Amino acid sequence: MNSIYAVILAGGSGTRFWPASRALHPKQLLALAGSTQPSLIASTLERLSPIVPNERIYVATGRHLVDATRIHLPTLPAEAFLAEPAPRNTAPCIGWATRVIARRDPNATILVVPSDQHVVDQQGFEAAVQTAIASAQTGVITTIGIEPTRAETGYGYIEIGASVSDRVSRITRFVEKPDRARAEEYLRSKRYLWNSGMFFYQAQVMSDAIARHLPEIAAGLDAIDRAAAQGKDAEFEALSLVFPKLSSISIDFGVLEHASTLNVVRSNFGWSDLGNFASVWEHQGHDERGNAVPSGSVLVDAERTLVFDARSSDARRVIALLGTRDLCVILTDDAVLVMPRDRAEDVRAVVDQLKAAGRGDLL
Amino acid sequence: MNSIYAVILAGGSGTRFWPASRALHPKQLLALAGSTQPSLIASTLERLSPIVPNERIYVATGRHLVDATRIHLPTLPAEAFLAEPAPRNTAPCIGWATRVIARRDPNATILVVPSDQHVVDQQGFEAAVQTAIASAQTGVITTIGIEPTRAETGYGYIEIGASVSDRVSRITRFVEKPDRARAEEYLRSKRYLWNSGMFFYQAQVMSDAIARHLPEIAAGLDAIDRAAAQGKDAEFEALSLVFPKLSSISIDFGVLEHASTLNVVRSNFGWSDLGNFASVWEHQGHDERGNAVPSGSVLVDAERTLVFDARSSDARRVIALLGTRDLCVILTDDAVLVMPRDRAEDVRAVVDQLKAAGRGDLL
Repeated sequence: MNSIYAVILAGGSGTRFWPASRALHPKQLLALAGSTQPSLIASTLERLSPIVPNERIYVATGRHLVDATRIHLPTLPAEAFLAEPAPRNTAPCIGWATRVIARRDPNATILVVPSDQHVVDQQGFEAAVQTAIASAQTGVITTIGIEPTRAETGYGYIEIGASVSDRVSRITRFVEKPDRARAEEYLRSKRYLWNSGMFFYQAQVMSDAIARHLPEIAAGLDAIDRAAAQGKDAEFEALSLVFPKLSSISIDFGVLEHASTLNVVRSNFGWSDLGNFASVWEHQGHDERGNAVPSGSVLVDAERTLVFDARSSDARRVIALLGTRDLCVILTDDAVLVMPRDRAEDVRAVVDQLKAAGRGDLL
Repeated sequence: MNSIYAVILAGGSGTRFWPASRALHPKQLLALAGSTQPSLIASTLERLSPIVPNERIYVATGRHLVDATRIHLPTLPAEAFLAEPAPRNTAPCIGWATRVIARRDPNATILVVPSDQHVVDQQGFEAAVQTAIASAQTGVITTIGIEPTRAETGYGYIEIGASVSDRVSRITRFVEKPDRARAEEYLRSKRYLWNSGMFFYQAQVMSDAIARHLPEIAAGLDAIDRAAAQGKDAEFEALSLVFPKLSSISIDFGVLEHASTLNVVRSNFGWSDLGNFASVWEHQGHDERGNAVPSGSVLVDAERTLVFDARSSDARRVIALLGTRDLCVILTDDAVLVMPRDRAEDVRAVVDQLKAAGRGDLL
C-alpha cells in the first residue's frame, strides 16, 4: 500500500487582500471565512487531517514566512516546513517537495493543495480527494475540477474529455480565466470545470514529468538531492545556491499542459478560492440585510456591507455604518481601505500606488 | 462712546459630527474647515479680533467643557469663560452673560455669535458686524441675515419687513427650517434671509426684554447678580443653585419672537453653519475629482469623498479609497463611521443606537 502525503502550497502573497494581507502576513494566514473561523491555512490542515496524518503533511512556503506560518499550524513539526529561499512559482517548489517526499518514500502518492481556499462540504471534499488519490495511483496526474455554479470570470477552467469512471474524466485542455461570454458558454456546455488548483500524483510520475518538460529544473533538484545526502547543512547551502536560479514557472504551464494524459475528478463540495473581498463577503455569514460585520458594530440602514477588521484586539474599536450599500471596509492597525464591493478585484491598483509612492512599509 | 463686547456661544454638542464630536470634545473644537485650519472656535475668536479686543470677549460654555475649550483659546484670560453649571439653552446663558457684562459696563453693546460657524469673507463679515452694531446702538435688537444662495432646508429663515437703511430692515417674522417647496419659494421671493444665529444689542435692552418676556429667568439672574455683589464664592454658589433651575428656552423663542421691533442686516460673506459632514465636505478644499482627504491618502478612482481624520497624530495611518463615490469616512482613535454623503444629516441615528446599547463611553 502506497503512503499518502500532502503538500500545502503557502507561498502566495494575496495582494488583493491588502491591507489585511501583507508581505509577512499573507492571505492564507487570514481568517477570511469569518472572524470566528481559523485562518485559511489552519482550515486547510484541518480539512486534510482525516485523509493524511500530520507527520506526512508538508507546507511549502517562503523562508521569510516560516515563523508566521508555524504559529497557525502548531501541530506540525519543524521538518514539515519546506522553506523556499526565493519565490520561483509552483514548478520548482512542487518539484523540490516531491523530491523531499520521494527520499522518504519513493512510492508516495502526493496531494498538492493551495493553502488559501474555502470548502463548505467536508464530506464531499474527502470523497473527491479519495477518488483523485485512486486515479493518481493509476499513474495519471489527477486534478480536482469544480462544477461551475455561475459564469465566473475569475477562475481558470478545465475542459473535460473522455470519461474514465463515474466521477473521473480525461482532461482535454486547461483554459485561462475567460471573458464573460466565454464563461457563460462554458457554464451552459457542462463540459468545463473550475480548476481548483489541487492535484494528485505519484512521486515518480511527477519527477519524470519534470525531467521531461523542465530538464533544467530537474537538474537543479538533482543537485539539491545530492547535497541532501551529505546532511542538513549541505542541503541548506545547495538550496540557497541553486533554488533561486531555477526558472520561475508554474506547474500548470510547465508540466500539466504538456502531459499527454491527465485526469480530473468532477466535484461539487462548496469550493471557493476566496479570490478577493467580494468573495469573502459572499462566504461569510450575513445578517438579514446582507451585512457581514464584527459584533458590536453599529448599523443604521446598512445593506450588503462587509467590514473586515484585522486590527490587533486592543486596537479594535467601534465601527458605525450609516446607509452604506455594497461596500467593503477593511481595517488594520496601520491602514483603512474603503471600496464598493464590485471593485474588490482591483485592490492591486492601490498596492501599485503604494509601491510607486515608496510605501513598502505598508505592503 | 459705548464699548463693544462679544459673547461666543460654545455650549453645543454637535451630535451630527460623531464620532469626531464628543460630549467632552464638541463640534466647535474640531477643525472642520480643513485639517490645516484652526478649530471652529479658534477661527471664531480670530474673526472677532479686529472688532472686539480680547479683554472684552466672553465664552459661554458648559463647566465640563471649560478646560478643553481654553486649550483652543489660549489668548483669553480665565475670567473670559462663563461656565454654565447645566445646559439651559440660550436664553438663560445670554441673560447671564449680559448681566456679567452690564456689571462691568452698563452701556455695553453686545455681539452674540455661535462658536461653530464658517465664514469665507472676513471683510464682508466685519462690515456686516459694524452695521449691526450701529443698528443695535439705536436701541433695537439686531440680527445678521444671510442672503440665500440655494433653497436650503437645514436653516431657519428671517422674513424681511420695512427697510431701515441701505443694508438694514425690520424683521417681520422668524421661520423654522422649511420644507423643500417653501425653501424654494423663499429663495425666489428675495424676502427671506438665513438666520445666522448672530445678534447684537445694548445690555439694558436685552435685560429689559428678558424681564418682560421671561420674568422667571430675570428673577433668577437677579439672585445671581446679588450674590455676585458679595464676591466670587457667593456668585459661584448662587449660579450652581439657581442656574440649573432656570427654564430651558432659546433666546429666539423666548425673547426675539416676542419683540415688537427687530432689525436684520442683509449680508453675504460666505457664511455656513457647517451643519453636518456634507457641509464640511462642501467647504473644504477638494482635489480635481472632488475628494477632501488627508495628505498621504491613496486614491484610486475615488470621487467626491470626504475623509475626516480626527485620530491623534501617532495613531494616524494610511487611508485608501478605491472607487468610492460621494462617501464620508470619519476616523477617530476609537471609532470609524462610513456613510454616503447624503446621509450626513442622520448621524444622530447612530448616536441614538449607541445610547440605546449603553455605549455612553463613545459619546
